[in-house]
Amino acid sequence: MGLPPFVVNPDETFDALYGMRRLEIEEHLARGEITVRSDLLQPWGLVHGGVYAAMAESLASWSTALAVAAAGQIAMGLSNTTSFLRPIREGTIHGLATRRHRGRTTWVWDVDMTDDQGRLCATSRVTVAVRDADQVLGPRG
Amino acid sequence: MGLPPFVVNPDETFDALYGMRRLEIEEHLARGEITVRSDLLQPWGLVHGGVYAAMAESLASWSTALAVAAAGQIAMGLSNTTSFLRPIREGTIHGLATRRHRGRTTWVWDVDMTDDQGRLCATSRVTVAVRDADQVLGPRG
Amino acid sequence: MGLPPFVVNPDETFDALYGMRRLEIEEHLARGEITVRSDLLQPWGLVHGGVYAAMAESLASWSTALAVAAAGQIAMGLSNTTSFLRPIREGTIHGLATRRHRGRTTWVWDVDMTDDQGRLCATSRVTVAVRDADQVLGPRG
Amino acid sequence: MGLPPFVVNPDETFDALYGMRRLEIEEHLARGEITVRSDLLQPWGLVHGGVYAAMAESLASWSTALAVAAAGQIAMGLSNTTSFLRPIREGTIHGLATRRHRGRTTWVWDVDMTDDQGRLCATSRVTVAVRDADQVLGPRG
Repeated sequence: MGLPPFVVNPDETFDALYGMRRLEIEEHLARGEITVRSDLLQPWGLVHGGVYAAMAESLASWSTALAVAAAGQIAMGLSNTTSFLRPIREGTIHGLATRRHRGRTTWVWDVDMTDDQGRLCATSRVTVAVRDADQVLGPRG
Repeated sequence: MGLPPFVVNPDETFDALYGMRRLEIEEHLARGEITVRSDLLQPWGLVHGGVYAAMAESLASWSTALAVAAAGQIAMGLSNTTSFLRPIREGTIHGLATRRHRGRTTWVWDVDMTDDQGRLCATSRVTVAVRDADQVLGPRG
Repeated sequence: MGLPPFVVNPDETFDALYGMRRLEIEEHLARGEITVRSDLLQPWGLVHGGVYAAMAESLASWSTALAVAAAGQIAMGLSNTTSFLRPIREGTIHGLATRRHRGRTTWVWDVDMTDDQGRLCATSRVTVAVRDADQVLGPRG
Repeated sequence: MGLPPFVVNPDETFDALYGMRRLEIEEHLARGEITVRSDLLQPWGLVHGGVYAAMAESLASWSTALAVAAAGQIAMGLSNTTSFLRPIREGTIHGLATRRHRGRTTWVWDVDMTDDQGRLCATSRVTVAVRDADQVLGPRG
């Protein structure tokens, strides 16, 4: 069946706005990168917490969406728990998503975000709901 | 003592990039708004989960930061748990942050995000660490 | 249709072991109490964090289970995020669960736990999956 | 300096009540086991979600507490996010805690809980606060 048709060109979505590059999107793993820019920071010069949460959400959701599309299913984020461990001020944020659970109705991902020195700076647990495509127009939960 | 000096002009931070307007920042409550634009969406036309997480993070962090500044302390997000309940496609996201706990070293906030019909669409629990300002240059945790 | 048949007598489950009394179980709200005993503590005399998580899980799950039973559906916990705000050493833990979201496939609850002085000591966000009863024998997710 | 003196004999705490055996407690890793009994179940025969949360909390807290005791510090759980992936009905719950972050004021752990077939059934992220021992009598946060 394949992915549902795009409503927004993927090059013009939120991922594009904050500069998330998808490097690898597999069924059980995903990788991405973000180059730190001043408009990704909070006023005191640290990368904003929402940037990490967004990166994790995207990697987990894209991987799940691509994997379940063949069965006519769509993926939607259900929850995102992000812990902020160490600030990043410059360089690149490296995101690695690993699938921890593949259930009938939910997939669970861990997403680690590291800096250019390989230090763990944030880590997210993302739960993605898998639903039949015809539910996409209704409430998420 | 007051807030630590800004490293980035608040009008040029991540909040500005995704269009979060702070309407009210009090010690125990904060309110903000985001006008939905196509570059806040994911490819299937729903507001990206990272937008909700970012809004919650900002409201909780700003309120805590302003409140503890007088004591020479700074605020940094420790964790952000966001549940996605109902998608938003257009209109305005209305955020209301309510402080649930004010401890010596952590403050805990609940942030509800509703659509123009007043329906709860996402809700976040944000834990903000409060530290002496001289710790700001070290690891967050 | 009603609740699925019990496998374990409710008076002999985990709730009985740690002494959780269900005072009120409604579709949108639940209340319970636990009398603090030494075998609910950790070695330094504070109520164990697992006690709060268990109480929240039970209140949210019972309320959802009773509400959806009429439709031939069952409820199973999907995730439980508990924040520990203030220790309790003695007296009674008072739990109040409030439903925040009622979706087709997930219900979301906030559960506040207070001490005898009414101070907020722990708070949980519990997501409960709602599934058709014939799924109960398979994986949760 | 060593651990603060016990208020409750560790053999008579909550861990003893629900039968959690600590097999290995190291600074960066911990392992434990729980034999499933009927009084650890909910009425429909599944291990109660609170049992997983409690196990994770204990493993993370004990490891942190032992590691920081030499510096005159104590450990207290700050938050516990547990995802329930697959039910367990019988046998043994095997818990493995891995430290993900060691900060000055918080340590973050991932705790995986598997069944006798090695399947991941629950997973927790536990954040433990590290404080000077003289703070133990005040609020947690």
